[in-house]
This record gives sequence, structure tokens and C-alpha cells, in this order.
Amino acid sequence: MKRILSSITLCLALAGTMNAQELANFNFGGRQRPVISPEIQNDSVTFRLKADYATVVKLSGSWMPNPYGGTIDMFRGPGNVWEVKIPLPEPEIYTYNFVVDGVAVNDPQNVYVQRDGTRFLPMLIVPGERTENYNEATRHGTVSHPWYHSNVLGMDRRLTVYTPYGYENNPKKKYPVLYLLHGAGGDEEAWISMGRTAQILDNLIEKGLAEPMIVVMPNGNANQAAARTLGIPEKPMQMRWDREALAQMPEAERNKLMNGYVISLCEEIVPFIEKNFRAIAKPASRAIAGLSMGGGHTITASNLYPEMFDYICPLSAAGSATPEQVATLKKAGVKLYFLACGNTDFLFEGSKTLDKTLTEQGLDHEFFVSEGGHVWANWRLYLNTFAQKLFK
Amino acid sequence: MKRILSSITLCLALAGTMNAQELANFNFGGRQRPVISPEIQNDSVTFRLKADYATVVKLSGSWMPNPYGGTIDMFRGPGNVWEVKIPLPEPEIYTYNFVVDGVAVNDPQNVYVQRDGTRFLPMLIVPGERTENYNEATRHGTVSHPWYHSNVLGMDRRLTVYTPYGYENNPKKKYPVLYLLHGAGGDEEAWISMGRTAQILDNLIEKGLAEPMIVVMPNGNANQAAARTLGIPEKPMQMRWDREALAQMPEAERNKLMNGYVISLCEEIVPFIEKNFRAIAKPASRAIAGLSMGGGHTITASNLYPEMFDYICPLSAAGSATPEQVATLKKAGVKLYFLACGNTDFLFEGSKTLDKTLTEQGLDHEFFVSEGGHVWANWRLYLNTFAQKLFK
Repeated sequence: MKRILSSITLCLALAGTMNAQELANFNFGGRQRPVISPEIQNDSVTFRLKADYATVVKLSGSWMPNPYGGTIDMFRGPGNVWEVKIPLPEPEIYTYNFVVDGVAVNDPQNVYVQRDGTRFLPMLIVPGERTENYNEATRHGTVSHPWYHSNVLGMDRRLTVYTPYGYENNPKKKYPVLYLLHGAGGDEEAWISMGRTAQILDNLIEKGLAEPMIVVMPNGNANQAAARTLGIPEKPMQMRWDREALAQMPEAERNKLMNGYVISLCEEIVPFIEKNFRAIAKPASRAIAGLSMGGGHTITASNLYPEMFDYICPLSAAGSATPEQVATLKKAGVKLYFLACGNTDFLFEGSKTLDKTLTEQGLDHEFFVSEGGHVWANWRLYLNTFAQKLFK
Repeated sequence: MKRILSSITLCLALAGTMNAQELANFNFGGRQRPVISPEIQNDSVTFRLKADYATVVKLSGSWMPNPYGGTIDMFRGPGNVWEVKIPLPEPEIYTYNFVVDGVAVNDPQNVYVQRDGTRFLPMLIVPGERTENYNEATRHGTVSHPWYHSNVLGMDRRLTVYTPYGYENNPKKKYPVLYLLHGAGGDEEAWISMGRTAQILDNLIEKGLAEPMIVVMPNGNANQAAARTLGIPEKPMQMRWDREALAQMPEAERNKLMNGYVISLCEEIVPFIEKNFRAIAKPASRAIAGLSMGGGHTITASNLYPEMFDYICPLSAAGSATPEQVATLKKAGVKLYFLACGNTDFLFEGSKTLDKTLTEQGLDHEFFVSEGGHVWANWRLYLNTFAQKLFK
């Protein structure tokens, strides 16, 4: 036993350094005081970066009024640790990075990272009531990535599926399903990464505020098999915007071209889930929600398949519905129509128009208007809100 | 339909930029020629980084003789795009980064990223026979992250589980299971991320070179519930190195303290998998393999539970076995003992000693010696090699 013990000790000592550092590109090794970043203290947060030879170091964060171009200066301190202390922003999850002599740099001290498109960005989680459900709960559901075959889109495609805590231990229990759709620039991991779906559902279910449910997050880009980070070649985008050509197509072909993903969702993904997971295969146990482009997909799905989902939640949606389509939905007996948008969102007018159509057609619905624009802060808030209203 | 079409067009145009860029920290927007990096051409590879205000830009890569401190200079070109062209390294997966005025920077143009500890590093995949199975196959297994409850370690703990292509479509088929253990500095995602386990198994199974199998990758750090990137507080490390205190403990308590993770693996994880997945619950359908510290865990598990696994593969292992332990294993009827190590690995002597003990005790085994040291290049090679020998 002693020999094993000492080998393992040696290995821990040596491999602990080597394994975790295939490249030596940080300067925090050795005897120097460790750099802590970000550091929240009362009502401030301090960011730090060791940068021995930099001339100008700045901080850019999504809490800034103009995060697309905004930065604030950091100052060189002892040991070439650059630092800036700012007032703590309102409770929310933010992303940020440093700009070292004009180049974007992630915070090497921060273990919390989100993936946004093909970029990995450090997160700042400011604690508070708003972010309470964005942290890890005590009990965790399972996140998996099965692949389904799409005849409509001609490829195997990757899904993200959340099954709630207890799914494994209750082999006879069946669950309702939320189909949760991302926006343009996103993929099947967007809701799990930036949206904190697993954390939000874990917390709501643990607190008894939401029904235990399965959440299915497909890839909404019809030309993709999976997130770009997997490096699978994409199909060329089809000529969707050539209206002349579209007008001359047979209806079924045009529909498949325009709505291939939504058709695949309703005719392939829903059956795949209901076959391979313990899902309740009834409209009253199916919800659909989506943000931005995914809000458009949500509206299109509810228009093309009005009897499929009893819960419909377009969020900051790019899309609209005609009075006839709304009348059809009403007749189908929708149980919840939850429409949400930020009051400075560039798509707010569209949501207001949809709200008006819903009202005029007498479809009972909720129009949830939040502060702010077309951002994940709002989409997390919406999920945390409408997930409590599903399947009840 | 037209109204939906034009809203979606608008949204794609606007949100395509916004969604994928919560922060504007790159300069590649607008009308500038896109920067391509890395670019493989014949027998060279070019790295590029736009850095307007940098003074010195260097490249560091894991193919360099001394990646822990080695860098090569990059040169400023038109439009402040820094560039360096180097001979293409041998086929393998490498990690690299830029060093801008002394600060490590990831390549914003590269979508392929590995997680190494808490760091995300860009990958360079050099094509060739050696890396053929490291790319995406046509057919994909499912990767999931269930949580099991450990009474031994006192927490719910996160697993990574790979089920092979076809698992969902063959609900009556049962599969053998490989338990695949990471090294110090790693966690339950190390083998999936740096080890390319899903890609290697997908390829081997698709080519008929390996049996369809389940692969279970637990977290081998007894004080952790999950990878540090989830931010779940860790238990304080227990006083494992206080030999006085250890000597005075009752045997069972000492064993649990020293080998808590291995006990949890064999007494909790194996039953969890065999209950919740369609696993064949027999020694002939169980394999265990691990690298470095995980090689130590592999040896410890085979010592403490000699009848549990018929396939045992310590890789660059930190650990050893006594003649008596080997004799016990031989009696238990091990089907494959695959010992692997690099010829410049700092643990090579230990592997040679174990090889000698195995030979002396007459335990039929394979000692697979590769070029190089204690690196993922070797562990991917070992997995790609021994996975073909399992369950046959």
C-alpha cells in the first residue's frame, strides 16, 4: 500500500502541473501571489490580469451601456497585475473580456465560461434574487446529446436533451416535454450554455415551482448537423430568398424549403423524443418556446401544426401570425400563449402587433414585457418565468 | 407567408451579428478581408492574428520541443494581421495559442477548442493516418451527463457516459462497458474533450474494428462533485498524507479514506450504470482503463476488486501491483492486461517494473511502448489501440 501511496503522491505532484498545462502561457506559476479575478466585494467587483509587457489594457463587459464598443481602462499595479474596480452591476449573468493592446483576451483566472457562437467568454454572475436560479441546484437533471436522423434535412442531427432529477430512478414515470428553440447565431447548446436551462429547471423543480419535465433543444440551423464547434461540414444554404423561384415551386416543395427545420422538428424530432424518452405523447404535455429566430420557428410550428402544442411561448420573436392562424389556434384549445419581449428590443413592434392580433381574435394570452432588449438576460428571465406555468 | 419571410430575413440580418457577439472585442467585422487561421497548405501551416496595437506577438504550440516555455515570433503584415508560417508538424492533435505582449490569447478564428483543466485552448488537427479516427465519424453515439449518488463520498457526482450509435434503436440489445479514468488535473470531461473518446469510438465501431460498447468517464477527484467549470464548491481535501494518523485508523476507515473514489467506482458507479443503462453485468463485459492517476486508480481497482473487470488497461500509470496481487488477478482469469507507456514518460520506470512483475507471475499481458512522454497524444493512441481488443 505504501508503494502505491508514494507513486500516487509523486504523480499528483508532477502531473497536477503537467496535465493541466499543455502549454505554458500564463505567468502565474511559481511563487508569485495568485491573481484573483473577478473578485466581488460588497458593492464592487475587481478585475485583474497579469500582463508583463502590455502597453494598454482595457475591460469590456456586457453590462456596459455600449458593450459593442465600450471599454474602460485598467491600471498597472505591483507585479504587472493590471486592475480595475467598478461598482457591482445589477444581479445578472454578464460576459466580459480584457483587451490587451487591442486584442481580446479571456480571463485566465475565471473558471466560468459560456460559449457564444464559436467564442468562449468568461462570465460574471452577480448574486441576487434575479440570478438565484442560475446557479447549480442541489439535485441535477441529466443533459445528453443524442442524434436523430432527419429525412427532411438529409442528415443525422445533434440534439441537447435535459431530463429532470429522478428520471433514472422512476422508470415508470412519464414526463411532459418542452421544445426550446435558439436564435440566429446559436445552436443546440445555446440554451444550455448562455441560457442556463439545466440550472433554471433544476432549481424550479427542486423548489416545487415547475413540473418535472424533459427539455429538448434542437439545432435550428437547417444546414447544420451540429454546432460549428464540432467541425462537421455544413450544407450550402439553399436559395430561400429567390422569390421568383419560390413562386414557381409546387406548394409542398416550397413549404419544405422554407420550413424544413420546423417540419423536421414536428414530424421527426417530436416522434424521436416520444419514442426514446419517457415522454407523454399528448398536446397537453407538449410546449414549444423559442427566442428571436426560434420565436419565429415557434410561431411557424404553431401555425403549421396547430394541434401539436398546448403551450406556445414566442420570446423576442421574429415572426407573426395572421388572424386566421390565431383563430385556428384558439379552436385547437391552446392552454397557454405566453408572448414575451423587451421594451427596447428591435423586434418589440412585431410582438405588439402579435399581441394585438391575439387580443382581437380573443385568444387568452399573456404579454410579458420586460426592461431591455434582445439579450440573454431577458431570455433567461422568460424561461424562469414561463417554465413555472407549463403543464399545470 | 411574406410577412413571416421578411421578419425572419430582418432577424437573421440583425441577430446574426448581435446574438453571436455579446461583446465587440474583435476587429474582423465590417468590410475587411476575413482572417483565416490556422491555414494548412500542403506541408505548412500558417497562423494569423489581427492585432492593431501589439508590439510583440508570438506563437506557442504543443508540437514545440519545449511547449512549456517555447514560442516563435510572428510578423506584422498588411492590416496589422500578424502571421507566421511553419512546417506542418506530424499528424496529431495539438493545442496552441498566441502570446500578445506577454499575454496568452486564443485564436478567435479557430472553432476547434479543447478544455484542459479550466482552460479552453484552440486545437490544430493535422490530418494523417494517426488522426484519422479523431475526426467526426458519419454515425454518432450519444454523450450524456447523468449524476449518481455516492454514499461513500457523500454527494451527487457527475458522470460522462458514451452510448454507441444504435443504442436508441435497439432497445433489447445489451452492451459491454469500458470504465475510462482521467489523470490528475482532469475531470469527467477530460477524455471526451482532450481524449476524443466519442470520435475514436464512433470511428472504430463504424469501421467494425471495435465492439459497440458503453464508455463511462467518472470524475476521479474524490473531493469534487463535478468539473470545476460548474463552480460547485469542493470538499476540503482530507488528510491523506498524515501517515501517523493513517496508521492508527481501523483498516476499513483507512481504506475508505485512501481509496474512496475507487470504492465508489466499483460499488456505486458500476451498479448505477448496470441499473440505468443496458449494460451486460458480467466481468467479461467490463473493462477498466485509466491514464496517469487514473492508471493508478485502474491498478487499485483491479487489486481491490480482482474479479470485477476482465480487461485491465493502465496507461502511463502512477501505481504498481505486488506479486501477490498479480497472482490473484491471474487466478481471477483476466482476459486482457494492456499496459502502455511512453518511452520518455517520467513514469516509464514504474511501468517497466509492473511489466516485469506481470511477466514473473506469468500473467499474459501486452506492454505497449510508444514514443514520447506523458501527453494526450499518447493517451488517444492507446485508446485507439486497446479499444479494438476489448470484449472479443
